[in-house]
Amino acid sequence: MERNVDVAHLGHVEIYTDKFDESLDFFTRVYGLTESGRDETSAYLRAFDDYEFQSLKLTRHHTTGVGHIGYRAASPEALQRRVAVIEKAGYGLGWVEGDKGHGRAYRFQDPFGHVFELYWDTVRYQAPEAERPALKNIAQRYHGRGCCPRRIDHVNLLAEDVAVFRSFMETCLGSRVTEMIQLDNGRVGGCWFTVNNKTYDLACTEEHGGGAGRLHHVTYATDQREDILRAADVFLENGVHIETGPHKHAIQGTFFLYVWEPAGNRVELANAGARLILQPDWETVVWTETERRKGQAWGLKTIDTFHTHGTPPAHRKAG
Amino acid sequence: MERNVDVAHLGHVEIYTDKFDESLDFFTRVYGLTESGRDETSAYLRAFDDYEFQSLKLTRHHTTGVGHIGYRAASPEALQRRVAVIEKAGYGLGWVEGDKGHGRAYRFQDPFGHVFELYWDTVRYQAPEAERPALKNIAQRYHGRGCCPRRIDHVNLLAEDVAVFRSFMETCLGSRVTEMIQLDNGRVGGCWFTVNNKTYDLACTEEHGGGAGRLHHVTYATDQREDILRAADVFLENGVHIETGPHKHAIQGTFFLYVWEPAGNRVELANAGARLILQPDWETVVWTETERRKGQAWGLKTIDTFHTHGTPPAHRKAG
Amino acid sequence: MERNVDVAHLGHVEIYTDKFDESLDFFTRVYGLTESGRDETSAYLRAFDDYEFQSLKLTRHHTTGVGHIGYRAASPEALQRRVAVIEKAGYGLGWVEGDKGHGRAYRFQDPFGHVFELYWDTVRYQAPEAERPALKNIAQRYHGRGCCPRRIDHVNLLAEDVAVFRSFMETCLGSRVTEMIQLDNGRVGGCWFTVNNKTYDLACTEEHGGGAGRLHHVTYATDQREDILRAADVFLENGVHIETGPHKHAIQGTFFLYVWEPAGNRVELANAGARLILQPDWETVVWTETERRKGQAWGLKTIDTFHTHGTPPAHRKAG
Amino acid sequence: MERNVDVAHLGHVEIYTDKFDESLDFFTRVYGLTESGRDETSAYLRAFDDYEFQSLKLTRHHTTGVGHIGYRAASPEALQRRVAVIEKAGYGLGWVEGDKGHGRAYRFQDPFGHVFELYWDTVRYQAPEAERPALKNIAQRYHGRGCCPRRIDHVNLLAEDVAVFRSFMETCLGSRVTEMIQLDNGRVGGCWFTVNNKTYDLACTEEHGGGAGRLHHVTYATDQREDILRAADVFLENGVHIETGPHKHAIQGTFFLYVWEPAGNRVELANAGARLILQPDWETVVWTETERRKGQAWGLKTIDTFHTHGTPPAHRKAG
Repeated sequence: MERNVDVAHLGHVEIYTDKFDESLDFFTRVYGLTESGRDETSAYLRAFDDYEFQSLKLTRHHTTGVGHIGYRAASPEALQRRVAVIEKAGYGLGWVEGDKGHGRAYRFQDPFGHVFELYWDTVRYQAPEAERPALKNIAQRYHGRGCCPRRIDHVNLLAEDVAVFRSFMETCLGSRVTEMIQLDNGRVGGCWFTVNNKTYDLACTEEHGGGAGRLHHVTYATDQREDILRAADVFLENGVHIETGPHKHAIQGTFFLYVWEPAGNRVELANAGARLILQPDWETVVWTETERRKGQAWGLKTIDTFHTHGTPPAHRKAG
Repeated sequence: MERNVDVAHLGHVEIYTDKFDESLDFFTRVYGLTESGRDETSAYLRAFDDYEFQSLKLTRHHTTGVGHIGYRAASPEALQRRVAVIEKAGYGLGWVEGDKGHGRAYRFQDPFGHVFELYWDTVRYQAPEAERPALKNIAQRYHGRGCCPRRIDHVNLLAEDVAVFRSFMETCLGSRVTEMIQLDNGRVGGCWFTVNNKTYDLACTEEHGGGAGRLHHVTYATDQREDILRAADVFLENGVHIETGPHKHAIQGTFFLYVWEPAGNRVELANAGARLILQPDWETVVWTETERRKGQAWGLKTIDTFHTHGTPPAHRKAG
Repeated sequence: MERNVDVAHLGHVEIYTDKFDESLDFFTRVYGLTESGRDETSAYLRAFDDYEFQSLKLTRHHTTGVGHIGYRAASPEALQRRVAVIEKAGYGLGWVEGDKGHGRAYRFQDPFGHVFELYWDTVRYQAPEAERPALKNIAQRYHGRGCCPRRIDHVNLLAEDVAVFRSFMETCLGSRVTEMIQLDNGRVGGCWFTVNNKTYDLACTEEHGGGAGRLHHVTYATDQREDILRAADVFLENGVHIETGPHKHAIQGTFFLYVWEPAGNRVELANAGARLILQPDWETVVWTETERRKGQAWGLKTIDTFHTHGTPPAHRKAG
Repeated sequence: MERNVDVAHLGHVEIYTDKFDESLDFFTRVYGLTESGRDETSAYLRAFDDYEFQSLKLTRHHTTGVGHIGYRAASPEALQRRVAVIEKAGYGLGWVEGDKGHGRAYRFQDPFGHVFELYWDTVRYQAPEAERPALKNIAQRYHGRGCCPRRIDHVNLLAEDVAVFRSFMETCLGSRVTEMIQLDNGRVGGCWFTVNNKTYDLACTEEHGGGAGRLHHVTYATDQREDILRAADVFLENGVHIETGPHKHAIQGTFFLYVWEPAGNRVELANAGARLILQPDWETVVWTETERRKGQAWGLKTIDTFHTHGTPPAHRKAG
């Protein structure tokens, strides 16, 4: 069967914060995104080489977590094809008008409460004079402020049943599962999805905290691992809670660093090196619990909060 | 119009050498590829995370240059579609049986004498015991021998008329032109092509030496820029001719290092950082001669031999 | 008071192993040292830019641990001055004839059983043809084999009373204490010593295992942090036990990675960046237990074995 | 003969600028130094881990170049010893009161017009609240602004007769010559000096422009080579003239990048990796013209302006 390529890439993630000013300061001054716009409820943020107006929409809210996840379709026709499939599958919510960052979008929802949208019409970032790059093949100048990642990389969501979530992703976005965790109890512990040649653009791991529609983390990509080591010092000096890392994931082999932004949302910086999934008939790499017990690639044990902390906070404790 | 995605990725390049033993020693011990097989005329080589049996076929020959360039199709159906298009366009040569690295392939030729092939059936690399990786999501262990690049990245060919070559690539492979050089005399100085999310998998620059079907260079990707700095010392200590670099290309922003293998073929190591072309409606970045005169990204002037040296050697001098 | 500069630098460490062949294979093929000589009991090893014949003497023994630690004096006269001081202080053992790596040396012993020696006459490494560097200002070619560190960096010893050990070091070698840990119970938890501009060449931490004269680890310096990230993959692929890291020490700010060689001796790779102690009136940085509880620089908690594992193994467990 | 160690380290360099505001903006915002003080004529600047109040004194002047070079003595007694030697040798100028950055200093002058000073009493940098580091063993927080080097590294001066300059350095500071260039005409092309374990803290190369007392460049050290690659992008985006690099010097093996600050003074960023001169009987490495013709370590040809451009501008052209 030929691989579906109707969806081009992850476009943006909307993050909720109940500490808007502190979160905005973190994302711009420390994490190194640029604010490209603002409206009553949200700041529109982007990494220096994101070609769209936004890749992170930071929204004032009564709590934390993810507002929605936006994917860009591969063409107007592909968008129509996808919407038809989503509607038929019963996940559809309907069209919305878009915002400062893109045009009309079709919204749909997974069984765990995460809202997605798919769109074609987008707003390309037009760098103002002061942000114009020296080289015309990047979207904005390399400003060097804060951690200065290059582009949005992926989002990680929590779901009570990852197998169900997998079905949702395969149906709605045509995503491939590049790697996954198969638990001894028969359940799926986690799935890593991609719609293109990136090793993953979305991951889903099992919800252990009783929450619904929760966010595990959102991630931007740096050009080099050294950017992440440097970022660790930037976080340290700015009093940011470093949760774990820098280290290398066993799954996907990504070099990583996790911190919590001031409102509590987990944010990652990651570097995949030159690893891509170019193989059209890639077979899902399946990790067992035994294999997972070895820890991360170089032996780091996964920190407890990594299994329990999500946003918004859940009422019952992880078990 | 929807983007054609019938072709998955560059699979392998066949390189001719008239100093087989020295070239093989270079590619395995210094450059850091692994020999996965051998037949009467050729050694089959691969980088540690190439999933196929081969990505570089090193072939004994009376001279140097490129034997052929292999691309893998996205599916058996896609292969059939492509072959129909290629035959109709008049570039076709016909089917061949394949070799140790892949099954039957359809061969075709550009107007300048470079032979291409497109195939679906491939031979996946099966790591022998000693090469089995600690982490199951890479194709072979990270052996750390020589420069140890991760995967094949791209090939650069010389053509007397780049605009004609562009038409060939768009027709046969459905490649996108991500960046190009527009000369003041109206000619196209160079084109960078991709069939997937890589920034380029093949480049074509203008032939100034009067040769036909010549190779400019073949390139493997390293995970980090530091790998390339380290490689420079490895080349230095092994008496390899370093032609230019390490530096950063203005075009595509790739960090690079060029050397000549013992038989004279130019070989590159490159790192693109986290840069990908995910945008479905990417518009070709066009560089003018004036812009090119600024040199590479950080000001390095392009070295003379870069404009003249190709393989096999050409009879008349560059003009 | 003027700083004593009679001692130039740490010269070599003798390591005992009860698995000589495995240890030698580790140190040469994986860790990346070069064997410059061999006698009945020992292999003489060195990093590519150590100027002396040896920096690590690997000796067959019935158990593991440290044989002796050698420092080179700043001049023949300085050696005589030091010997007079050491003898007078009662730490002296007397002169020995030296070995393949250096001439006569004066041996002395700390109260916890570690043997030291001080020497002036040394044997400079003369690179054989195959190891001659391309650039004449390094001692041996950058061979790129294994982790390929540049030079010996420091050794860490365990002592029941670090304050007593400090007195020994200040008396015998004129070492400065650049950083230290002051425990709440009034004891000294650890001291970092240097005789030159390096931030430390010897560290001593409190023995919790009831052993005597034990080794905590020996360390070589890499040029870049990236070399250590790369080394982590080399260790992983070679089945070496990675104990902790890569991460950044809070104390001294050194980027580190700890592994156990096959016989059980702990070995580190470290990178200090551009940090040096050039200040002649440097004041010891004193860390409290409260500060230490924050973990390493970026929050990594110190792994349990780091407090208990030393070589040779001790009979009673750490308390 | 025992090595003289009366001088501890290079302390600061005074740089003249006829574009004070532009130069100050460059050194603080782009190059990444911190302004610790200001008086009528000068701004006092420092890298984040320089322990003194200043390492670069930027002074308004009618032209460019170097005001003076300050070295810190190893002790008050050592200062007195040195002054006696300098006076006797006839290089002395006399005592000055010092400035915001240090106490009284003894000034002296080389035969080519460069003014030096030697001092013991210094002003340690006291980080204000906002600049206090998370880890107490560095002088100031790692601010991450601009290129953010760690510490001053060295200065390079031009002299009509390098052999004469060498004699001056050996006499006044007790410097060792770690490497040098021996020209075919019998003259010394360049000398690299150190007073401590750094590979060099001052270099002197032959003046070809007819100037007197000129500066070739001043250099700060970064922790990693990657910091220099990142800096190249920072310079590029800020319109700074990149003269040459990044590349690796053959002499001393230092990774380098040279730029011109707005007033025209050449400024370098450099990384020596883990290379130190710990050997007490180090023998000067002597490079011949033939060896120098190979270019830099990886083959980069030295750019013309590197041989001619110094500050202030000289009246006659280089010959």
